[in-house]
Amino acid sequence: MLMKYRLYTPGPTSVPEATLLELAKPVHHHRTADFRAMFAEVQSALQYVFQTKRTVFTITGSGTSAAEAGIVNSLAPGQKALCVVNGKFAERWSKVCGQYGIEHKDLKLEYGQGATAEMIANELKAEKFDAVILVHSETSTGTVSDLAGICKAVRASSSPDALVIVDGITSIGAMEFKMDEWGVDVAITGSQKALMLPPGLAFVAFSERAWKAVEANKSVREFYLDIKAYAKSIEAGDTPYTPANTLIEALGVSLKMIKDETIEGVCKRTGTIAEAFRQAMQAIGLKLFSSMPANSVTAVYYPEGISDKDFRGTLRKTHNIHIAGGQGTMEGKIFRVNHMGYTDVYDCLAVVAAIEFTLKKLGYNVQIGAGVAAAQKVLAELF
Amino acid sequence: MLMKYRLYTPGPTSVPEATLLELAKPVHHHRTADFRAMFAEVQSALQYVFQTKRTVFTITGSGTSAAEAGIVNSLAPGQKALCVVNGKFAERWSKVCGQYGIEHKDLKLEYGQGATAEMIANELKAEKFDAVILVHSETSTGTVSDLAGICKAVRASSSPDALVIVDGITSIGAMEFKMDEWGVDVAITGSQKALMLPPGLAFVAFSERAWKAVEANKSVREFYLDIKAYAKSIEAGDTPYTPANTLIEALGVSLKMIKDETIEGVCKRTGTIAEAFRQAMQAIGLKLFSSMPANSVTAVYYPEGISDKDFRGTLRKTHNIHIAGGQGTMEGKIFRVNHMGYTDVYDCLAVVAAIEFTLKKLGYNVQIGAGVAAAQKVLAELF
Repeated sequence: MLMKYRLYTPGPTSVPEATLLELAKPVHHHRTADFRAMFAEVQSALQYVFQTKRTVFTITGSGTSAAEAGIVNSLAPGQKALCVVNGKFAERWSKVCGQYGIEHKDLKLEYGQGATAEMIANELKAEKFDAVILVHSETSTGTVSDLAGICKAVRASSSPDALVIVDGITSIGAMEFKMDEWGVDVAITGSQKALMLPPGLAFVAFSERAWKAVEANKSVREFYLDIKAYAKSIEAGDTPYTPANTLIEALGVSLKMIKDETIEGVCKRTGTIAEAFRQAMQAIGLKLFSSMPANSVTAVYYPEGISDKDFRGTLRKTHNIHIAGGQGTMEGKIFRVNHMGYTDVYDCLAVVAAIEFTLKKLGYNVQIGAGVAAAQKVLAELF
Repeated sequence: MLMKYRLYTPGPTSVPEATLLELAKPVHHHRTADFRAMFAEVQSALQYVFQTKRTVFTITGSGTSAAEAGIVNSLAPGQKALCVVNGKFAERWSKVCGQYGIEHKDLKLEYGQGATAEMIANELKAEKFDAVILVHSETSTGTVSDLAGICKAVRASSSPDALVIVDGITSIGAMEFKMDEWGVDVAITGSQKALMLPPGLAFVAFSERAWKAVEANKSVREFYLDIKAYAKSIEAGDTPYTPANTLIEALGVSLKMIKDETIEGVCKRTGTIAEAFRQAMQAIGLKLFSSMPANSVTAVYYPEGISDKDFRGTLRKTHNIHIAGGQGTMEGKIFRVNHMGYTDVYDCLAVVAAIEFTLKKLGYNVQIGAGVAAAQKVLAELF
């Protein structure tokens, strides 16, 4: 039976057909006026998505490359960072600090808990820091932190110039994110999340404050991730090393879709779909993993007696639907569904219905349609 | 008038239509048995292209990322490298050494000159080194170095265990390259050259000797380019960070074409096309830039009175053909034409004919057809 392939992992996410077709176009060289003009448009669209007037640098690499670039260019060994550690990606940035010789205090939260302004204010009361590093939307747990509040708390603290370094990999382009207005200092994202592109590109922007730190930082020995080389090249509309230029051209197509819908429209759609999904899961008796759920990805506890292998296996085999499981210690305990990027109202209904069918098949007592109805009730707001 | 777009820059190079179509397929998640099976096939095909039994690591990034990974993982600050510096890319690897604190002696050759076994033997007579770093085929000048001879010279020297670290970015998959047989220790390449893919992936392999150095090296603070993380992940058929998975899938298509043609067949085709092009240029009175020309890319001096801007501009505007100019101090003095990858006999004739038409248009005294005839004479060997 025909069952279309549907991808609901929180990265890679679905990519629009128009963007995919752009990727199938013959490869052009990138040191041309045409490429520079296109790259300049992409730059301006990225600034719109980041809500910043600062340059957004494009790195050919995984999101991790941009996060490392953000951290090691703006901080020097011996400086001190407060790392909010509440998930797998947060743990990674703390590890980057350690490897690079940045002193770091880890503010460990339970998985599923987000950081609040109060928590950060408390930490900054006791101790001075050069930076606060956090994940805005922790993909591994589907949890949001109060980034706007945290920025305010930092500025009002006794470390008012501490850099706020933010992994926005599953928030930028999916949830409200105002780099300049909120005073985020280093903002990081990747291509395969809300930006509706395959993996391969990563992005990082620095505030004026952070850029001063970059310029003062004499400790960078990294070559590929030395952001000063990117800054120099971008003046000529270029990248320092051969970029994944076909991905950048395709990015232009996806970013135009975001601009056409407006960033507010994208965030509203994503947020409403996320809320619909959360309501649906609760309507069929499931429990959300996070106490501060993010709108980009929802993590849900498995009910008693349902195994990850059977559940996601059935979704894959019978429904041709790919969702994510839990990572690390969360493996087998939760499943995760993406709402970012190229996801519409009916994609949301499809995955809810498939979850209902699958749970019933596996013996869980679910009233078919209850989740879908709950989702529809929320989604009706959009029309 | 219809003029098809033809790309002859030495990276990005043309990509086969079948590979481009693979890029237009819907994005799948990469942590699956299907992806792992495909990645294992890609791995084995990469080993075939590198002519090695060692693991070839795939990094999402520019070629520069793999070169940096190759150097900083196998050498520690304070160790000493002999860098053959004979072009723009060679200069870059010397700079990576400097930035990372690796002592390096630069063996400076004139642009267009390649390194011989004798030169390296002489250097190693006077001084001990932990590594010799060189570019097999210097893309900026179209120059080959005698890699097989240099490997032998190193082993016969008083630094017999010096690591031979080779930028094979425009040699691997285009010219004879036998990593294991020759005893290359670190071999590096990128996706957008002979491997017939858009930019975005880079590759690095380590010999047993080099891997011992990697394991002993405690100085790596780089996170994204820490190759040990890649080694750990590849045991599970994975990459440590989200890879450009659609590029990897497309790579599978291109590598299958290489396997079908055989690596010897690919190198013979590339070499014959290069020789045909060199004969053609000389037949119309032009002079080659390099005294040791590489088969992957040919650099040619402009004749008196022909400007780079007019020449390449006319090729672009009238013929829809994109070739490369010179870089750095070579700008305006040379043009460069690619022979690697998805280039056949008739692509070679087309670019020669277009060069004839363009030179004539710009007032250079050329007998139309002389270059093409010279090329055909060489190409006839292939049939």
